[in-house]
Amino acid sequence: MTIPFTKMHGLGNDFIIVDTREREYPLDTNTIRTMSDRHHGIGCDQFVTLSAPTNPKADVLVRFFNADGSEAGACGNASRCVAKFVGNNPVLQTQNGLLPTYQQDDLFTVNMGKPHLDWQSVPLSEAHDTLHLPLHDAAACSMGNPHATLFGDVSQAEELGPSLENAPLFPERANIGFAQILSPNHMRLRVWERGAGLTLACGSGACAAVVNASRRNLTEKTCRVTMDGGDLSITWQEDGTVLMTGPATLVFHGEFA
Amino acid sequence: MTIPFTKMHGLGNDFIIVDTREREYPLDTNTIRTMSDRHHGIGCDQFVTLSAPTNPKADVLVRFFNADGSEAGACGNASRCVAKFVGNNPVLQTQNGLLPTYQQDDLFTVNMGKPHLDWQSVPLSEAHDTLHLPLHDAAACSMGNPHATLFGDVSQAEELGPSLENAPLFPERANIGFAQILSPNHMRLRVWERGAGLTLACGSGACAAVVNASRRNLTEKTCRVTMDGGDLSITWQEDGTVLMTGPATLVFHGEFA
Repeated sequence: MTIPFTKMHGLGNDFIIVDTREREYPLDTNTIRTMSDRHHGIGCDQFVTLSAPTNPKADVLVRFFNADGSEAGACGNASRCVAKFVGNNPVLQTQNGLLPTYQQDDLFTVNMGKPHLDWQSVPLSEAHDTLHLPLHDAAACSMGNPHATLFGDVSQAEELGPSLENAPLFPERANIGFAQILSPNHMRLRVWERGAGLTLACGSGACAAVVNASRRNLTEKTCRVTMDGGDLSITWQEDGTVLMTGPATLVFHGEFA
Repeated sequence: MTIPFTKMHGLGNDFIIVDTREREYPLDTNTIRTMSDRHHGIGCDQFVTLSAPTNPKADVLVRFFNADGSEAGACGNASRCVAKFVGNNPVLQTQNGLLPTYQQDDLFTVNMGKPHLDWQSVPLSEAHDTLHLPLHDAAACSMGNPHATLFGDVSQAEELGPSLENAPLFPERANIGFAQILSPNHMRLRVWERGAGLTLACGSGACAAVVNASRRNLTEKTCRVTMDGGDLSITWQEDGTVLMTGPATLVFHGEFA
């Protein structure tokens, strides 16, 4: 049985999308792993399945899997790609809640929900002010996954990322953002992602960086974030939710043999 | 204009094949680079185009491109995939000459031609017996591309590969094979490929390793070669040509947007 799929990317963060809304496909962990392998399969950073929502307020149920077959809670770049794939500004049902999406011209916006700023939610291993961690004076928050942001030199990412990801302060490990403030509305960011290392772009990491930078009054609550793979626009809204806006690119359709 | 393509792999060495025999596609260097990119495109080790042969003894003209868009002379693993794709035991016209192919059950054989054993053909930078180089006592030959084989411990590949690839003795650099003889008919091999580093499997490297090992009487002229990606069977025939036999796997068909 062949499995139809679509390959998309958001700022170079690349995804296989399999739409099971009209037809079921046998997507067990082994199949996801094989299809995600870059040499023996199609290759991707994350594997995404679409199915009918269980929540009547949602248009589609979205599940995100890592290339090793394990399930991931959320992925900002993949959410924009799903918004483009499904069309008509769908509301996405994810492990991280309902995510509304909006299209304007070629750009797609996902409402990524509210950040969690208390130390238990990040989580940290012990009580600390999440605005000033005793670790390179980083700031932390959760965007559904744990993020810490260091302000200074983005070129430190390779050197500091591996040890900070696994620091005892982060019992579930953490994504580590290295941010350099260019102006109140623009930052440079590189993110060392938990379990993946440096990536071309990290949507939730960009949201966390703007949340953390604006809490420190280093930027305004609307800020452009320039990553190695390109730019995202982030707005931390008055209602507490974070909007993430950026491109979503269709690469090809295929049939997996 | 969408470009139909097929993704295949031989022992994890993976290829995009575009068949232009019935229809032309605009495949300039930029397009090849974009399609070969693993995050923004389809992704592959090598990009292969098929067109009508100019030699009446051939069935198909095959060109091999590296992921950076530069043209490569030959690729054993890709040649087996092309044999499977085209069908009916095609003769391949390549920069490296005409390569006959044969299918038996699920395995595909390519006649890789004759090795060149003189130092000028490898090439080396100065006259040496190619059977015993003054460099870790390696043996060298050309299979259309320069190969050196070291006999001993395959775990040295990461450490020694980078410097040996670029040794002054190899004016065009070289692929460096690390071979461990398991029996007269079986060797373990890892190949540090010129410009690519360690790969899962290297077809011409397996041919070179058996040529060099049998010249040293370390193996017979028919030998199984176990690489990280799987096994190839190599036979250095009486007529001087080398047969390489192994699997070829179809992964998927797609249409590049």
